[in-house]
Amino acid sequence: MTFTPLPNLNRRDAATAVLAAKRRLGLTWAAIAERLERSTEWTTSALLGQQPLTEEQVKTVRALLDLDEAVAEALLLPPLRGAGAVDTSEPIVYRLQEAIQVYGTAISELIREEFGDGIMSAIDFELALERVPDPKGDRVKLTLNGKFLPYRVW
Amino acid sequence: MTFTPLPNLNRRDAATAVLAAKRRLGLTWAAIAERLERSTEWTTSALLGQQPLTEEQVKTVRALLDLDEAVAEALLLPPLRGAGAVDTSEPIVYRLQEAIQVYGTAISELIREEFGDGIMSAIDFELALERVPDPKGDRVKLTLNGKFLPYRVW
Amino acid sequence: MTFTPLPNLNRRDAATAVLAAKRRLGLTWAAIAERLERSTEWTTSALLGQQPLTEEQVKTVRALLDLDEAVAEALLLPPLRGAGAVDTSEPIVYRLQEAIQVYGTAISELIREEFGDGIMSAIDFELALERVPDPKGDRVKLTLNGKFLPYRVW
Amino acid sequence: MTFTPLPNLNRRDAATAVLAAKRRLGLTWAAIAERLERSTEWTTSALLGQQPLTEEQVKTVRALLDLDEAVAEALLLPPLRGAGAVDTSEPIVYRLQEAIQVYGTAISELIREEFGDGIMSAIDFELALERVPDPKGDRVKLTLNGKFLPYRVW
Amino acid sequence: MTFTPLPNLNRRDAATAVLAAKRRLGLTWAAIAERLERSTEWTTSALLGQQPLTEEQVKTVRALLDLDEAVAEALLLPPLRGAGAVDTSEPIVYRLQEAIQVYGTAISELIREEFGDGIMSAIDFELALERVPDPKGDRVKLTLNGKFLPYRVW
Amino acid sequence: MTFTPLPNLNRRDAATAVLAAKRRLGLTWAAIAERLERSTEWTTSALLGQQPLTEEQVKTVRALLDLDEAVAEALLLPPLRGAGAVDTSEPIVYRLQEAIQVYGTAISELIREEFGDGIMSAIDFELALERVPDPKGDRVKLTLNGKFLPYRVW
Amino acid sequence: MTFTPLPNLNRRDAATAVLAAKRRLGLTWAAIAERLERSTEWTTSALLGQQPLTEEQVKTVRALLDLDEAVAEALLLPPLRGAGAVDTSEPIVYRLQEAIQVYGTAISELIREEFGDGIMSAIDFELALERVPDPKGDRVKLTLNGKFLPYRVW
Amino acid sequence: MTFTPLPNLNRRDAATAVLAAKRRLGLTWAAIAERLERSTEWTTSALLGQQPLTEEQVKTVRALLDLDEAVAEALLLPPLRGAGAVDTSEPIVYRLQEAIQVYGTAISELIREEFGDGIMSAIDFELALERVPDPKGDRVKLTLNGKFLPYRVW
Amino acid sequence: MTFTPLPNLNRRDAATAVLAAKRRLGLTWAAIAERLERSTEWTTSALLGQQPLTEEQVKTVRALLDLDEAVAEALLLPPLRGAGAVDTSEPIVYRLQEAIQVYGTAISELIREEFGDGIMSAIDFELALERVPDPKGDRVKLTLNGKFLPYRVW
Amino acid sequence: MTFTPLPNLNRRDAATAVLAAKRRLGLTWAAIAERLERSTEWTTSALLGQQPLTEEQVKTVRALLDLDEAVAEALLLPPLRGAGAVDTSEPIVYRLQEAIQVYGTAISELIREEFGDGIMSAIDFELALERVPDPKGDRVKLTLNGKFLPYRVW
Repeated sequence: MTFTPLPNLNRRDAATAVLAAKRRLGLTWAAIAERLERSTEWTTSALLGQQPLTEEQVKTVRALLDLDEAVAEALLLPPLRGAGAVDTSEPIVYRLQEAIQVYGTAISELIREEFGDGIMSAIDFELALERVPDPKGDRVKLTLNGKFLPYRVW
Repeated sequence: MTFTPLPNLNRRDAATAVLAAKRRLGLTWAAIAERLERSTEWTTSALLGQQPLTEEQVKTVRALLDLDEAVAEALLLPPLRGAGAVDTSEPIVYRLQEAIQVYGTAISELIREEFGDGIMSAIDFELALERVPDPKGDRVKLTLNGKFLPYRVW
Repeated sequence: MTFTPLPNLNRRDAATAVLAAKRRLGLTWAAIAERLERSTEWTTSALLGQQPLTEEQVKTVRALLDLDEAVAEALLLPPLRGAGAVDTSEPIVYRLQEAIQVYGTAISELIREEFGDGIMSAIDFELALERVPDPKGDRVKLTLNGKFLPYRVW
Repeated sequence: MTFTPLPNLNRRDAATAVLAAKRRLGLTWAAIAERLERSTEWTTSALLGQQPLTEEQVKTVRALLDLDEAVAEALLLPPLRGAGAVDTSEPIVYRLQEAIQVYGTAISELIREEFGDGIMSAIDFELALERVPDPKGDRVKLTLNGKFLPYRVW
Repeated sequence: MTFTPLPNLNRRDAATAVLAAKRRLGLTWAAIAERLERSTEWTTSALLGQQPLTEEQVKTVRALLDLDEAVAEALLLPPLRGAGAVDTSEPIVYRLQEAIQVYGTAISELIREEFGDGIMSAIDFELALERVPDPKGDRVKLTLNGKFLPYRVW
Repeated sequence: MTFTPLPNLNRRDAATAVLAAKRRLGLTWAAIAERLERSTEWTTSALLGQQPLTEEQVKTVRALLDLDEAVAEALLLPPLRGAGAVDTSEPIVYRLQEAIQVYGTAISELIREEFGDGIMSAIDFELALERVPDPKGDRVKLTLNGKFLPYRVW
Repeated sequence: MTFTPLPNLNRRDAATAVLAAKRRLGLTWAAIAERLERSTEWTTSALLGQQPLTEEQVKTVRALLDLDEAVAEALLLPPLRGAGAVDTSEPIVYRLQEAIQVYGTAISELIREEFGDGIMSAIDFELALERVPDPKGDRVKLTLNGKFLPYRVW
Repeated sequence: MTFTPLPNLNRRDAATAVLAAKRRLGLTWAAIAERLERSTEWTTSALLGQQPLTEEQVKTVRALLDLDEAVAEALLLPPLRGAGAVDTSEPIVYRLQEAIQVYGTAISELIREEFGDGIMSAIDFELALERVPDPKGDRVKLTLNGKFLPYRVW
Repeated sequence: MTFTPLPNLNRRDAATAVLAAKRRLGLTWAAIAERLERSTEWTTSALLGQQPLTEEQVKTVRALLDLDEAVAEALLLPPLRGAGAVDTSEPIVYRLQEAIQVYGTAISELIREEFGDGIMSAIDFELALERVPDPKGDRVKLTLNGKFLPYRVW
Repeated sequence: MTFTPLPNLNRRDAATAVLAAKRRLGLTWAAIAERLERSTEWTTSALLGQQPLTEEQVKTVRALLDLDEAVAEALLLPPLRGAGAVDTSEPIVYRLQEAIQVYGTAISELIREEFGDGIMSAIDFELALERVPDPKGDRVKLTLNGKFLPYRVW
């Protein structure tokens, strides 16, 4: 019975390494995004493992964050977008799910009234997070922007 | 063994009645919202059962939609905001859940970087749905706006 | 094939009827509790179906709330205390569950350190809810008070 | 195929190390809390992994408990507050859940009556655990104190 | 579209009717068991729907409890013994499950040591419930008695 | 990226080591229990990980079973009593669960009749397993003995 | 709001009616099967709702069991073969599932060795139940007979 | 923090080693069974981990398959018969479960008619798998043979 | 307490009525589809409740199938496309799910290779079912045709 | 306590190694398939772990992709076809599941009308994936082709 090594790093391991490097170097996500010439939101999502990165992008990130080659290789793997990508009982994420639980029926109804039979794409989709100053306590503004796709009739 | 009648209508039954009346009268949610002097999104959510309505508001809606007294009474019941309020496998709602599955970790990370340890409220929260014209196909823009709440340390 | 009527009202139906009567008569839970000579919390819990009521207590409640005989009979049924007694995805209840999710390990650890091997009873247990005025926004104070029960060693 | 080491310690590993050190040194949570100038409850929760710690706090804890550098680094990671943070079938925690199962509906109803439409925050929230001497057997008194947050209407 | 009546009473409905009649007549389970010449435990289980009853037994019960013919017919239906027969989150039942959760591994191990490879039957099985007076508080003694069945080897 | 060792043995690992040593030395649970001056059932449960052991008890067990220091340390950890403590689909344990599924409602009803509103404790609780010789096949007799705890009314 | 009747009987209701008629007339499944010129097992399965019946077969059964027209119509509906067709926690069915849990891996392995890559059909499949007299207690012999289907390679 | 090795091989690991050895040596299950003087089905089940093996049997198997001592030791461990013993979504096993889903109700009904109130044992149980030649495609014939056990009445 | 009627028919009830009418009139889905000038697959899906129908289409179907007004009204309700729309344990549907379970990873990989990062739409999607004659047994050919949608990068 | 190595690579590990080699060598699935003289779809499925490979096929793949011996050995293991073979929440796979959710009932109905009582095989089954150029955006065309299997009547 010969011992065979476990496989290399995956995207989740790479995300852990990126977070550690970012903390060590004191960088912001905005600063990393600027180097990649992408939005802060897409960049964060990509480096945490949910978007694919090109060889060029990985090269840039590797240099900026001083990452191991094994981490760089892992960043080139396909993204992880399944349920394992997130802990939905984590309090921030849970409240987003609750908002969809509470308002989901109304959103469906309003899309049906405004656009007809179809859905809002989660693929041709972008997300923006903004801080809105407010004297009673600053607010988080999340914008979800997805193409309307009508059901095909044939 | 005497026969006892089942209880009266609940908020879900009231929502069904409201939808039927709206269809019959050809009204829009925006038109109903205007009468209630509330946003279209809040109004839709409230009449579908997820927000409380005052006696005054119910009176206005009853007159506008020509509803039975039993429906009006049901509209005064407390809102339904639990998991039963929505079918999360319905395609529109599912894609919203998928977006949170894919982007939830990035959102948590960005809130932590920008605001520190805390959450985005789903209570001191509002929602807007907008149609964004686009030559490649119009888009749905959902804005989620919630107060940042820092964790208390004691 | 003869038609047989469905069984009579259960505790949940009785709770619905109590809530409707309370709303109609404009009573508070504290006022009902005073008549029963019990705490407001126990009284609310009992009339919503989670505690047993004596014939005497049901007589008092029936007179106060002007309830049907069928409702009074249902109030005499055994309490409902299983998972069906509550919707744990309802936002208030969910946050209590989240608090236990976040602090449960610490509570276990502190009970172990202070009392040794055992649990806090949920049976020899009482609950109090209080409004604490606060200039930054009033607070809800929930007190859970349960007997410590040491594990038996034999 | 090159062998790549598994990632470093996480917050759960750090909690295990803290518990071992505390046992070895015979310290109480109250003693550790005093050094951190925080409540015993918050301190226990933080060192078990559910609250963030500052570099200063970790330095204090490291010195007090004689922890490895790897453990100290892990204590600086973001807190774990998802469902994985607790085993809800553990007997102490289960009874807290049962109490919420049994009394949750009454709590919701009393908050609605006293405060109106809203929730008790689990974020702007604090917890205290106290031993109440009682000749029939000492009692555990848990106080949950959270800000009331009204639903926004827009 | 013609209206067809729903089917008649089932065993659960019959149990509800038996409980109501027992309450009305002020009978004990022991008294009913004596008439059936069976143990109190088997009798309770049978009338609540988990054991089959003969025509003779149903005749006796019907006379004793003054039941409708429809209830008597339902008592002749096959028993309900699936998961729907009980609410395992009900506090008494939950604690029995917890005891099996906590002691199940030890019971398996002790049966394996004492009897070898096999199981304790839940079919050739009987149950007794006894009140054990105790100055510190009376105790419930449950005796589960099942035939040991060795695994067949072939 | 430095390699950090995984944490030490837990109670489950210790149980595996105890079972191996017991097999190697040909000891019975009764013999081990006698040394600990506890019942066979409690001793089995404790060494399999579901009860806490004192330093004195671990010293006795370590000497008797010739255990490593790492195992002895693990035996001093808090007990594991959550759902992970047992595999409820294992045939012996499953049949105990089935017995509770089939008889749970009758047990609840009989406790309610005999004792009133309350539960049988799973904490102030003991368990005995006995072999009952029977010419048709020996039987397993399990005795569950728990204090009755009445619900507090306040 | 007009009242619309609920839909007619389904296959499950028809099965209940068939069982009641069979009990009333004192017929055996074998006797019914003989009239349908099918095996007892297929006939039982079909009348309980899991196989389709032709108009001719329904006519025969209706005459034999003196069924209502509504029941006869329901027997012509498509079969119910989903998970709702059975209660898998019912003790007889559970033990069949347990046998598959315990022996499933061995069955897979033996089919793979004997036949190669493929499955045993549950469609081109038949079942026989036989009573095997045995002095130590009669036995149930179930024969499952399904065509081997090799995986297609293309 | 000292490094402690993980525990040794379990029954699942032993099964993997047996399968590898069997493949390497080109043996059949029938050949291995002949050496153990047991049926092919029981032997396969035992070596895959679901039946206990005696020291004598392990000695025979170890010599035949040229297994490591660690594997031989693991084969002496108690069997694994819980839900983890099988992947019920594997296509062969799934179809067996589907057959029980489709025919389970009919099997229960036929056992009740033929034998009365009781079950077919999964313990005093044996299994045979046979290849039935058929010009339209060979068939798999599975015979399940279990003792009928009547419910005890007391 | 006044009795209020339950709400009218929903899409599922309408589907039941359509199936009954189709059976009574001996029509095929292809014939119904021809009248609606849509494909057979879309038409079947729509009348079973998963696609929206226009007033014109409902008028055509009502005349063709001689449906009640209540059914016609129900056919105008929004489609049901959530998990409740199908019983995934039904044998035909289960095998489609199994095919996705077995081939899903390969499909993902091939789409990624051929098209890049994106998905196959289930909205801009059509389905065709065809019978393919084959001397060894006719075959079902299902064609799923969905637009490729690339992930947006921003 | 001796340290025993973990078992060797499984099919999932082999798939990871194949994907890495394919990326390194810049090969397409079509090119690999051509060498194996199988379709691209079957080849992808086989190398990702869902189909068995012969020694000859593994030899070819090993040479082509320059794989380790351990990987080659793992490729000879039986295929993985259970639920663990795929992440059904991954966005591409999820949409296939949704398509079955939305159209499953219609597919069942059309197979029943066209073929009678039976299923579409997932075993005598093949799959093809094709790119269909379309000026509005290219399309993915998936063809599922399975033998119709009629239910056996006996």
